[in-house]
Amino acid sequence: MRTYDISLTITPDLPTWPGDPKIVLDRFSKMEEGAPCNVTQISACVHIGTHVDAPYHFLGGQAETIEQIPLNILTGRAYVLHLPDEVDLITPEVLIRLGIPPRTRRLLFKTRNSASWNRDYNRFHEDFVAISAEGAEFIVDHGIRLVGVDYLSVAPFAEPKPTHDILLQAGVVVIEGLNLSQVSQGRYSLYCLPLKIGGADGAPARAILIGV
Amino acid sequence: MRTYDISLTITPDLPTWPGDPKIVLDRFSKMEEGAPCNVTQISACVHIGTHVDAPYHFLGGQAETIEQIPLNILTGRAYVLHLPDEVDLITPEVLIRLGIPPRTRRLLFKTRNSASWNRDYNRFHEDFVAISAEGAEFIVDHGIRLVGVDYLSVAPFAEPKPTHDILLQAGVVVIEGLNLSQVSQGRYSLYCLPLKIGGADGAPARAILIGV
Repeated sequence: MRTYDISLTITPDLPTWPGDPKIVLDRFSKMEEGAPCNVTQISACVHIGTHVDAPYHFLGGQAETIEQIPLNILTGRAYVLHLPDEVDLITPEVLIRLGIPPRTRRLLFKTRNSASWNRDYNRFHEDFVAISAEGAEFIVDHGIRLVGVDYLSVAPFAEPKPTHDILLQAGVVVIEGLNLSQVSQGRYSLYCLPLKIGGADGAPARAILIGV
Repeated sequence: MRTYDISLTITPDLPTWPGDPKIVLDRFSKMEEGAPCNVTQISACVHIGTHVDAPYHFLGGQAETIEQIPLNILTGRAYVLHLPDEVDLITPEVLIRLGIPPRTRRLLFKTRNSASWNRDYNRFHEDFVAISAEGAEFIVDHGIRLVGVDYLSVAPFAEPKPTHDILLQAGVVVIEGLNLSQVSQGRYSLYCLPLKIGGADGAPARAILIGV
């Protein structure tokens, strides 16, 4: 069984959401300067790289925070759906045409975004492929419990709120910032483990797929 | 199959290593103040809570950094060994007396440290149970590829270097800061996924055990 690392590497060059703080890595204890060990501090928004959104991110109030997301949704059988490069927006029409296998509960979209991580890693793109509001409703109506996308938002750049609201209100777990370039369409076991940050609106995660 | 979350919750109250920066969580975008969504920034040492040490942490130079630790060591069959509360130091004598099952490749130590996370969460203890240098050599000699401890260092507080050096030079993956209080001695499947931070000496991780 092959294991695929579908996580982005966190570096100061990784693009962050416009307006969010940049990623800072500060190795404040350095062996070459006589310290007993190397020690680094990280400073970053929790929505960097491969990460999970908690409902509290867009719903606020008493909505679930990241440490409350159930592990039995974050781990288990998942289906990677490969969308052709000409797909700009994930709509019900696209999903009907390509087909989601019956009983799919975790659905990861491999789009042209994944190749862009390898080609043009450190520039933020506004024209990434994302899920329309109607696409989000279609996903909820089909009993999907977890959805993953291969750029930094599940929603189109110009209209973030509707897609997030629909998915998060329905309790669909949202993973953003996957790199699926090494993975083919098909079934896998997913292990997506976000940091357990108390009370937070999201958390960076390491995500892997294991061939089944 | 039951899933156990063996990760500590990251909060500003979580004890950090003496001298390391405190954990800061700053929700800089707040819906109650009119922002479109809640967004938090985290600032922390990479060796907080449940985390993995990379060889570069204590060996420096060209030693492996955290994103290079193989996933096939971080995931797979693991054995939780429950040490009686009177054990202060994990030595060869303790390991011989309690017994490591044959063919164990990943070994997690449940000590009295685990209960302290529930009882006295937010105070740093110097008298935690850890592995002696001789215990580390014993572990290496027995072909263990991953070792996990339930406090913030694999080594005794007063003598951090020898235990770290022995394990990391042998390529043994070191997980620190587990909370094994809910887990009994026995065999499990471990998934320990540290953040993929480029070039770093360590990374916080989410770790789970699945009953087998």
